[in-house]
Amino acid sequence: MAERTVKLAVIPGDGIGPEVVAEGLKVLSAAAPAHDLALETTEYELGAKRWHATGETLPDSVEEELRGHEAILLGAVGDPTVPSGVLERGLLLRLRFSFAHYVNLRPVRLYPGVATPLAGTVPEDIDMLVVREGTEGPYAGMGGVMRKGTPGEIATQDSVNTRFGVERVVRYAFAKAAQRPRKKLTLVHKDNVLTFAGELWQRVVREVGAEYPQVAVDYLHVDAATMFFVTQPGRFDVVVTDNLFGDILTDLGAAVAGGIGLAASGNINPENAFPSMFEPVHGSAPDIAGRGVADPTATILSSALLLDHLGLPDAAGRIERAVAEDLQARAKDGGERSTPRIGDDIARRVAEQG
Amino acid sequence: MAERTVKLAVIPGDGIGPEVVAEGLKVLSAAAPAHDLALETTEYELGAKRWHATGETLPDSVEEELRGHEAILLGAVGDPTVPSGVLERGLLLRLRFSFAHYVNLRPVRLYPGVATPLAGTVPEDIDMLVVREGTEGPYAGMGGVMRKGTPGEIATQDSVNTRFGVERVVRYAFAKAAQRPRKKLTLVHKDNVLTFAGELWQRVVREVGAEYPQVAVDYLHVDAATMFFVTQPGRFDVVVTDNLFGDILTDLGAAVAGGIGLAASGNINPENAFPSMFEPVHGSAPDIAGRGVADPTATILSSALLLDHLGLPDAAGRIERAVAEDLQARAKDGGERSTPRIGDDIARRVAEQG
Ligand SMILES: CC(C)[C@H](C(=O)O)[C@@H](O)C(=O)O
Ligand SMILES: CC(C)[C@H](C(=O)O)[C@@H](O)C(=O)O
Repeated sequence: MAERTVKLAVIPGDGIGPEVVAEGLKVLSAAAPAHDLALETTEYELGAKRWHATGETLPDSVEEELRGHEAILLGAVGDPTVPSGVLERGLLLRLRFSFAHYVNLRPVRLYPGVATPLAGTVPEDIDMLVVREGTEGPYAGMGGVMRKGTPGEIATQDSVNTRFGVERVVRYAFAKAAQRPRKKLTLVHKDNVLTFAGELWQRVVREVGAEYPQVAVDYLHVDAATMFFVTQPGRFDVVVTDNLFGDILTDLGAAVAGGIGLAASGNINPENAFPSMFEPVHGSAPDIAGRGVADPTATILSSALLLDHLGLPDAAGRIERAVAEDLQARAKDGGERSTPRIGDDIARRVAEQG
Repeated sequence: MAERTVKLAVIPGDGIGPEVVAEGLKVLSAAAPAHDLALETTEYELGAKRWHATGETLPDSVEEELRGHEAILLGAVGDPTVPSGVLERGLLLRLRFSFAHYVNLRPVRLYPGVATPLAGTVPEDIDMLVVREGTEGPYAGMGGVMRKGTPGEIATQDSVNTRFGVERVVRYAFAKAAQRPRKKLTLVHKDNVLTFAGELWQRVVREVGAEYPQVAVDYLHVDAATMFFVTQPGRFDVVVTDNLFGDILTDLGAAVAGGIGLAASGNINPENAFPSMFEPVHGSAPDIAGRGVADPTATILSSALLLDHLGLPDAAGRIERAVAEDLQARAKDGGERSTPRIGDDIARRVAEQG
């Protein structure tokens, strides 16, 4: 088989970002040979350090260079020394928006051997796929402030929901649901309060749903959904929701599925008009940065999503299986391992697979 | 002691609302004699039935009458036969807004004997007070739709945050935190994305916090907060947050503290310029309505909040103790009791207290 070269942009970012990204790359490299892959990685220094040095979050020229890659692996963005929002909006959200990552794909799965905070909950109970809209909603950045610093101050924050934007992500979610054994899609919104946006989401789900008679459709208000994530996670198969509700639900999902150290995500442009970007759900965790104690598993699983997106499901499956094995081994020995040690162990398991 | 007459407006509402409100009133009546209270209740038929019959959600004249009461006890609002949002916005939110219920007070407490879905969690771990803003934020109802039904459709939903509105609820939250043993206040927002509104909330908390040096202030993004509700609920004492985040967090809080059947709330106007309104956190639950199986405990605990708000903490404490006893008794016998039976049992315990 001819070797396939994957041009990968790497953005280690802030805090624990560089540490976990190193392990993601280690495991990708371990998976490559058996699938005749060659990885060509280019690292981009973006994040707090660059902002402090130059005031830049994402220079246009860098955005242009990133566009020339097949995919992006990102660690984490954000640092207490940078005003809140500067890197998040100027770098992370800018990439998601510029590259039309309208699907923010976040599997929520309890791996065997992993401890969940939920009593009496087993792996079969938690296996969902959250399809979070990634390019609009309350994340649009619209709004403003007037009369700042006076008693008459007003700050607004506008959620923008387009037919175009809602429909494309809802279509993706239905297609995913149709491929899964349970074929169930739950729309999560708050249409009894956010009536304008909620009605649009409901209508689009109804219309697209008519093309998928085999998919059972459910609706939950976001408040009720958080309850069911904790009391009946088995109720969910595919969840489709807006940018903000998806942000909240996937952190909660990570918590019930064994913690943020395991939660993977893909910022996906399904048409491949732009490179998709893969990153752990967790943040930069500055409190534990540089100590080699961060769990790189979320990044490693994000690398598997990356391979899957590139049309390499076998390579992705190899990594996922290695992670699943490693998590079961962890459950047995229970010992704390360092960040590189976890990466080494998973990479070894990847290489060992037949 | 001279008898005090409390003029109470009662809105049973939809679904299980009438059933649980009846038990709340039963328990209030049981508590009254020992505290020299006389209850003068006026019932208002508002909700789905009235809307179907007359198209009205809340006639101005009824709002005016409600205003003449000291407090309102509400069951639940919402029915599948009414378009989503009509009753919520036209009745419930209209009352919260018209009566300046800027504090939506929601204790989250795990009572001894109550089962939590969280493994290894004990009552001492869950004892917080969520102070949810009740009159603005994403609930403002601002926004709209253009090009409806066309590919170019846009629906917006605007969060409106005023200095006035944020400051008054933040002041209330600090005052509450200062009275509690742990004296900790956690602001929950998403200031790295919702930068306009988030910066206002942060600034107000900083400024008001300067007047409360004895209160320790913490901040969490809403996504992280949902995780900690599940993994470290003991981290929270008083939580102050916006209308939508508070809606989400308090349902999650109810779930971890034993379920929505126990979660009480008060929509409070601290200045008593308008009657405050007390209601369970749960909704109208049409699926179980009329069957006598709804748990009225949330409404009964809301009645205790009502008495406390009216300056009757002893009477409130009597109800809370009776509920706590009843919950421990439930833990022992484990039998399912009907709605009126739970009300009877708690009312009896209230009457029996010395
Ligand atoms: C860092 C932040 C902007 C981001 C988000 O809110 O989307 C993060 O929480 C996530 O979930 O990827
Ligand atoms: C019924 C609905 C409008 C309401 C809200 O969102 O505030 C409810 O969920 C609540 O929490 O009281």
